Amino acid sequence: MIVRDFNDIVKNQRDRVVSDAKWSSVRMLLADDGMGFSFHITFLEEGSEHTFEYKNHFESVYCMQGKGSITDLATGETHEIKPGVMYALDKHDRHILRAEEELVMACCFNPPVTGTEVHREDGSYAAPGEVTEEVSA
Amino acid sequence: MIVRDFNDIVKNQRDRVVSDAKWSSVRMLLADDGMGFSFHITFLEEGSEHTFEYKNHFESVYCMQGKGSITDLATGETHEIKPGVMYALDKHDRHILRAEEELVMACCFNPPVTGTEVHREDGSYAAPGEVTEEVSA
Repeated sequence: MIVRDFNDIVKNQRDRVVSDAKWSSVRMLLADDGMGFSFHITFLEEGSEHTFEYKNHFESVYCMQGKGSITDLATGETHEIKPGVMYALDKHDRHILRAEEELVMACCFNPPVTGTEVHREDGSYAAPGEVTEEVSA
Repeated sequence: MIVRDFNDIVKNQRDRVVSDAKWSSVRMLLADDGMGFSFHITFLEEGSEHTFEYKNHFESVYCMQGKGSITDLATGETHEIKPGVMYALDKHDRHILRAEEELVMACCFNPPVTGTEVHREDGSYAAPGEVTEEVSA
């Protein structure tokens, strides 16, 4: 059994905290935990906007706190994001996520993220095994 | 893209809410969503105690609210459960979960739960494809 405390990770295991422009993500579970998915608590800064497209991953995102919106770039449809709303990128949907207030999200990735991925210019993460640059921060 | 609202499910999609003795679970994602995992928001009643052993599933559980403890029945070790603590049953660990206060948990299952599983006497869910009784409630 693995037991981890978000607050302990933030204080003492900074290698499990990944930050990029206007978001940061606390990796509670990664690929090497062997669960077949990864689980992250992710913060998106108030006022920020993000274009992502996980071509190689399925991701579900559950809003625990905050306020924002998501636009599906295939359909143009925009959905409100508030606590209790979940979106799942079952078609690897390219999307824009906006945080009107800071968003705190519980995210699952399949296949699991290894922890060394960076968002590429197209908003994706590399597929497992695909050569990727190291996170520099 | 799938978008679902916890509050809408609770009000209008009762087939996605599964209850058993002293717990209930809102199924935000199930096997037929095709994500490769399922995602549930689960409530464990104040004062309740539960013995589970997911022999056929990996499960991670992130505490969003409440207070309790988990005992690993293989090692006898007990861990505090409070907001921010996650446990992951990477060895299909048989365990006792106690809710001193109502616990609200974000749960991921791999393989994904179909929604018709019931806890068997041994605390497990059937494997995908294994014959199981229907949820009666």
